[in-house]
Order: sequence, then C-alpha cells, then structure tokens
Amino acid sequence: MAAAAALSLSSPPCLSSSASSSSSVQQQQRFTLRIPSLNLRSSTRPHRSSIKALSSPTPSLTQDDLKKLAADKAVEYVRSGMVLGLGTGSTAAFVVAKLGELLKSGQLKDIVGVPTSKRTQEQAASLGIPLSVLDDHPKLDLAIDGADEVDPNLDLVKGRGGALLREKMVEAASDKFVVVVDDSKLVTGLGGSGLAMPVEVVQFCWKYNLVRLQELFNAEGCEAKLRLDGGKPYVTDNMNYIVDLYFKTPIKDSEAAGREISTLEGVVEHGLFLGMTTAVIIAGKEGVSVKAK
Amino acid sequence: MAAAAALSLSSPPCLSSSASSSSSVQQQQRFTLRIPSLNLRSSTRPHRSSIKALSSPTPSLTQDDLKKLAADKAVEYVRSGMVLGLGTGSTAAFVVAKLGELLKSGQLKDIVGVPTSKRTQEQAASLGIPLSVLDDHPKLDLAIDGADEVDPNLDLVKGRGGALLREKMVEAASDKFVVVVDDSKLVTGLGGSGLAMPVEVVQFCWKYNLVRLQELFNAEGCEAKLRLDGGKPYVTDNMNYIVDLYFKTPIKDSEAAGREISTLEGVVEHGLFLGMTTAVIIAGKEGVSVKAK
Repeated sequence: MAAAAALSLSSPPCLSSSASSSSSVQQQQRFTLRIPSLNLRSSTRPHRSSIKALSSPTPSLTQDDLKKLAADKAVEYVRSGMVLGLGTGSTAAFVVAKLGELLKSGQLKDIVGVPTSKRTQEQAASLGIPLSVLDDHPKLDLAIDGADEVDPNLDLVKGRGGALLREKMVEAASDKFVVVVDDSKLVTGLGGSGLAMPVEVVQFCWKYNLVRLQELFNAEGCEAKLRLDGGKPYVTDNMNYIVDLYFKTPIKDSEAAGREISTLEGVVEHGLFLGMTTAVIIAGKEGVSVKAK
Repeated sequence: MAAAAALSLSSPPCLSSSASSSSSVQQQQRFTLRIPSLNLRSSTRPHRSSIKALSSPTPSLTQDDLKKLAADKAVEYVRSGMVLGLGTGSTAAFVVAKLGELLKSGQLKDIVGVPTSKRTQEQAASLGIPLSVLDDHPKLDLAIDGADEVDPNLDLVKGRGGALLREKMVEAASDKFVVVVDDSKLVTGLGGSGLAMPVEVVQFCWKYNLVRLQELFNAEGCEAKLRLDGGKPYVTDNMNYIVDLYFKTPIKDSEAAGREISTLEGVVEHGLFLGMTTAVIIAGKEGVSVKAK
C-alpha cells in the first residue's frame, strides 16, 4: 500500500502545470516521507487508519493536499474504455489532471471525457484527453465531480463554480456518480454551510425570481443575492444569471425544495443534486474515506 | 350558438365601463344583425374582409377578422388602473392595438402593460402604452394572450410564436388569464392539432434533449424537431433553442407530461399551460363565445 501513495504523491506534480508551486511540491515530498505506503490506486477501501497512524509529527495538510488525495482515490473507479463525466471546480481539476497523467503513462486507455464546463473542457483538451458531448455520448459510465455540501443522505449542493446546469445534465446521464470532497464540505443538512446554494435563472426579470426564491425559504431565514463578477452580474456558460441562496438554518425538506424551485418559471436549474450520488470520497486530516449508499 | 353570441355581444359591452367605444358598440350591434359591416377602420389590420363584407350580403370572415372580434371582446375585461400582461402573436397583437386605441381616446386610463416579448414591447411602446416588467410589477391583474391549442379543460398549448417562457412567467403572475382564439384552435386533447408543441431548451447539447423529449412521448408517436429560422437554429429572447414536438395522437396525460418534461435538465420551459386559464374567448363563423371554468 505504501508504495503507491509514494508513487502518486511524488510523481511529477502535474495536476496541472500551474498547480505545482514549489511549496506544494515540498509539502508533497514531506508528506511522502511520512505516509510511504498509501496505495490509492489498487484498492477502493477507505484508508483512514493507515494515515491516522502516521499523523502526529506530520506537517499539516493543506486543503489542496486533501483534495488531491481524494481526487486520486476517485480516479481508481476509472477503467480503460469508459465514457467519463468530467466535473468542474478545484477538486475536479485534480481529477482531470490525474486522468491526463494516467493516459499519458499508458495506464489508462480509450477513455472519452464529457466536460461539464468550458474551463474543464480547456483543461482536459490541454492534457490530451479525448472529449465528447452528451449529443454524441448520451450514456456515461461514470462521472466524477466535487461538491459544495454533502449531507448524511449523500445529497449535495453544487454549483458554486457556476456550472451547475451542465454538471447536472452530465451527471444525471451517468451510470455512476462519484463525488470528491474534503471533509469541510460535510453538513448535517443541505444549506447548512451558510454558503451559497445557487439557482440558475434566465436574465429576464431575474429580480422577480430572486424575490420568489427568497420567499420560498422564509422558514430557513433565506437571503437571496444575484451573483456578481467584477460588479456586473455573473453570466453562466448558458447566458443565464445565478441567484445564490444563503440559509440561516438548513433546508428542512430538500426534495420538496427542489420540486418547488423547479416549478418557478424562469428557473433553469438549481444546485440541489438529490438522489444522484453513488459514492462520496472524503479526504480529511485523518485520511481518505468512502461513503456509499 | 348565434343567439348566445348575439347576447354576449349586445350585453352591456363593458365588462369595463371604459371599454365601450361608440364604434365598438356600433360594431357589436351590427354584428348582432349579421355582421354585414364589420368596422375595420378602427383597427390596424388589413381591410380585406371589409371589402368582402360589403360586396356580399353574407360576408365570410377571414381568420384575422375572427381574431379581431375575439380580441375586442377580451379587452372588455380591462379596467382603468389595471396592470396587464400583454401576450405575443397575431391575436395578441389585435389586443394590444385595441388597448392603444382605447388609451388614446381616453376610454381607458392608467393601465400598465407587462409585455411577454420584445415584439409586443415594441408594438405597445409605439402605441403609447405605459410599460413595466415583472421585476417592478410582480402581481398582475389580468393577462390576455392567444393560444395555439385549447382543450375542453381550458388547458393550452402555447409558444409557437417562440415567447413561451416570458408568456408563462407573466401569465402565471396574473390574477386572471383570458385566452383569445379563433375556433380553429380548439382540440379534443393537447397536441391534437398535429402542429408544434414547443419546448425551450438550453443550446448546450440540445440534440441530447431533443432525443430525450421524443422518447418521452413514444406512445403518442412524437416527432421532435429543432426549430429553424432561415436555416439556422431559432434563438429565443432568452438565447435558448426551441424543440418542437409533433404528435400523431393527443398527449394522454398532459399533467404528467408537463412534470416529466420539466424534470429534464436543460429544459427551460414547455408550451403546456395547465390550470392557468380563467376564460377563453372563441371567435367562430357563428360569433364570439366565452368559456370559463
């Protein structure tokens, strides 16, 4: 087990050419010395205890280190020949980087990626990952993506990166959906992080829908805000706006909430991803664990 | 049928006191007598049928004549001071024209129009109708619009004009929704005209959604086609595409169909307007009739 962890962590720091600052390399090397044998490639079991044992004098892992650990674990689900949904966001970028690495080394072959955003498309293309779209590959074997919140039921909040619609389209079309997070994303109830739950709305009368969305969640003390980007409304890949919902208390009934949001005319998609998750890979200070239903 | 039409047209002409122009009263009285001299001078539409009407003792009315008759009837629901949803399409254009006329003559005052498309906005502005948007007027008193199909339950297919999303937003926000059609729009079941039932979808992977939409309606012998405009995809006011669904047999369960279409990620809105209608005004060769639930 130890060898593979060393392998993955000391291998060329190629999450993306830009993600390998000298400090992160240094950190990874130090980390490699302490956890020499975490085999992240050959097993699907949680490795919590193996890391725990080595934790005490260890340098503390950054959130990026944790994301990379979880991303590497998720990539173990990938087999040659698969059609893969490629998520969006910082954790998903580690997944895509790892896939590129394994393709380059020949350890993976014949995979096709279906990206969930222009950003992911560009990253994957730059790494030589063959790409397609749902139009040509309407059925996917596996999608891997990060999440903004994960509740005990493995339901998610996603879309703080702005790609919620394409993510949901691709991930709903996937046979399996593996979610990769660090443990800061675990919540007892969706909306419970106090951070944004995004809703994509058409530009037309966005304010009208913002008010309606806020009113839907009076009980949760919801505040709705138009997402801005440099002082102007943030525009999605689909030319829509995003209304971010902030809750004082978690959403009481996320199934009902999802249905009610969807019935509002002018709402294109919302960031509640319900009943879609196959497994969640969670990286924490004590190691990587896997939760499945 | 003729008697009822005569009654409805010669009854105090104004659901709104202000809608009783002398010309419309005159028109209605004449219509009651046999429609020999439909006063077309006060309208903005072609005068073809007036010539026809005057050249024959039993003039045949064109579809435009019928639309105008129904539109004039619908405007009787308007009162001064109302916030009004202004529909889109050829029949709605007659409604807007009539409103402009009544405002100009002073028979209507202090109305505010909320247009459902850029086209309607332009027409209403050119006629001096004060305009607003849902953002500023989230509650409307009345919306008036045409429809592509009306079933016995007063449920509708709308959106062949491409404005289905804005129409649905505005009309769902209205206290009352009056639909204006000629009798060619009556169907025994939605989809039964064999003409398009539109679904607005995001541009991203439209083909994927086209296939999914067609598969939803296998039982109805559905054919799904991307709407084109001069050889290129038609683009809605919201920068989306339209997939038109053509059915061999009417939709079996329109409530279920609406729900299922809405759950498809990437679908922005569909042309089934269910449970929204207050009254339908129907113009036929035998006169104008009103159906309400």
